[in-house]
Amino acid sequence: MPSLIMALELIGTIAFAISGAVIAVRKGMDVFGVTILGLTTAVGGGVIRDLVLGNTPPVTFREPVYALTAIGVSLIVFLKPVRHFLTGNHRHATMLLQFSDSLGLALFTVSGVQVAYLLGHAESLFLLTFVGVITGVGGGVLRDMMAGKTPYIFVKHVYASAALAGALLCSALWSRVGQTAAMLTGFAVILIIRLLSAHYHWSLPHAEGDPPADKPL
Amino acid sequence: MPSLIMALELIGTIAFAISGAVIAVRKGMDVFGVTILGLTTAVGGGVIRDLVLGNTPPVTFREPVYALTAIGVSLIVFLKPVRHFLTGNHRHATMLLQFSDSLGLALFTVSGVQVAYLLGHAESLFLLTFVGVITGVGGGVLRDMMAGKTPYIFVKHVYASAALAGALLCSALWSRVGQTAAMLTGFAVILIIRLLSAHYHWSLPHAEGDPPADKPL
Amino acid sequence: MPSLIMALELIGTIAFAISGAVIAVRKGMDVFGVTILGLTTAVGGGVIRDLVLGNTPPVTFREPVYALTAIGVSLIVFLKPVRHFLTGNHRHATMLLQFSDSLGLALFTVSGVQVAYLLGHAESLFLLTFVGVITGVGGGVLRDMMAGKTPYIFVKHVYASAALAGALLCSALWSRVGQTAAMLTGFAVILIIRLLSAHYHWSLPHAEGDPPADKPL
Repeated sequence: MPSLIMALELIGTIAFAISGAVIAVRKGMDVFGVTILGLTTAVGGGVIRDLVLGNTPPVTFREPVYALTAIGVSLIVFLKPVRHFLTGNHRHATMLLQFSDSLGLALFTVSGVQVAYLLGHAESLFLLTFVGVITGVGGGVLRDMMAGKTPYIFVKHVYASAALAGALLCSALWSRVGQTAAMLTGFAVILIIRLLSAHYHWSLPHAEGDPPADKPL
Repeated sequence: MPSLIMALELIGTIAFAISGAVIAVRKGMDVFGVTILGLTTAVGGGVIRDLVLGNTPPVTFREPVYALTAIGVSLIVFLKPVRHFLTGNHRHATMLLQFSDSLGLALFTVSGVQVAYLLGHAESLFLLTFVGVITGVGGGVLRDMMAGKTPYIFVKHVYASAALAGALLCSALWSRVGQTAAMLTGFAVILIIRLLSAHYHWSLPHAEGDPPADKPL
Repeated sequence: MPSLIMALELIGTIAFAISGAVIAVRKGMDVFGVTILGLTTAVGGGVIRDLVLGNTPPVTFREPVYALTAIGVSLIVFLKPVRHFLTGNHRHATMLLQFSDSLGLALFTVSGVQVAYLLGHAESLFLLTFVGVITGVGGGVLRDMMAGKTPYIFVKHVYASAALAGALLCSALWSRVGQTAAMLTGFAVILIIRLLSAHYHWSLPHAEGDPPADKPL
């Protein structure tokens, strides 16, 4: 069981490191900028989660595997052939960015619920859900603010709502169907909502005029 | 007494949620962006306060009433007639923004002093004041950074100084006149300084040339 | 010994307060904006360090000397003759900015390692180094994000890598040569790498085309 959890967190780390590194490469950053943005995106959500839960020092600081994985992934994204693929064909870069970001969002949201649960907050559906959502969206918000972009969470119409749906479902199911099934359900719901939303350009009511489509970054 | 405290915090939450949602509406964000900016502004200061004081998980995560109130208020600001009022007549939107921001600043500053006091830091006037100021300005700084704006704290000339005056007064009076009178005095001083400053375009010495007036956002 | 530590931290505070205040002056901010940016830059790294290590309230909130020093330094930078010198002759302003930022980076990086060590994390080279790096770069990242600039960490090519080299060296030497020698070595390595890098325009591999030089802000 712990190996399943760790595998999920590592996949989330890889996915978010890719999303941060891809944005950095498309912004023309050097190898260190790419690594820093990949690393910040990958560990940001988990650090916010642990600070909010008083779980200090955050896991990322205690277990080197996450940061080292994020750094390794960022360096791979920076390799010349990968960079050329990403900057030369923008459709593929956008798809990779979208998929890695969605995967990271889904995995970190359920990891947030899980850590809150394990730290003794099982009784509060609200806390579990809220921690899940900020863990899921935190890395991406930090990434976008550091890269000087409008946070994804405002640009993508069905983003935080996908995390909210998955976190709520995961938290509510936890005591009924067990940890594994609850986490897998929450994860699947978030990923499916995000991918469908991106594919069909779903949109929520907008403040002025017609809502723009769920546009790529 | 606890009901007075909670009432003050709820009014502060409502005020800051309005200020965040109004900025989001004027930026043309969709319903989820408006809700997120309203929520972040409303709970940001309190989360920073609790993290700094080691009071984890922050109150916002334990008591759903604050986040749910902020979400409800943001949705009301997004309602078509309210939106039209806010975007159609910029003078009224600016006045509402200014008043809700000033009210939130005043209420959260004294709430910061109060929580620091209750957590056992009564002996340090410096800590009480400092925590009060960052609690007061924190939500607005997060709001402006996420919305890609120059933080209000730099644009409004008498802003952090108003919070500083109120926090210092509140901290210094606490043991002499009691909690209620100290908080009300600090609150009133901040609100009055902010409103007078906005009305009379007060300004502090500026770095180059003539100081610009206390301009609206 | 404690007086040496405190002296180093105070010098770091002064250096980072200068770097924040200089950027604020060059952006045309008023006296309060200059003070806030100076203060945030000076105390930001230490607050992040203490939050990550669960050392709450952060030292800055308990010991007024750091914040008051940062405020005093910012006010001096705002004095008319200093301002004129800084805005009239951009080469000198850039040199002062570069030197104060490098000095702050070097001092706060080793202070991060030190506090992590004293709080009982001596056994983890990874944690010591990681905490050192975020303490060193944290103040500058906050400064640049609040000032609406691309964080220095992305613009300066050999920046986080200098902090990383110094933090690693300081952490690794600690148990072998003692605290003072380890901290002085780490400090000297960071400062020398940064100053040489700025002087010779060192650069790391860049994502597109030729790498630009280590350009001033």
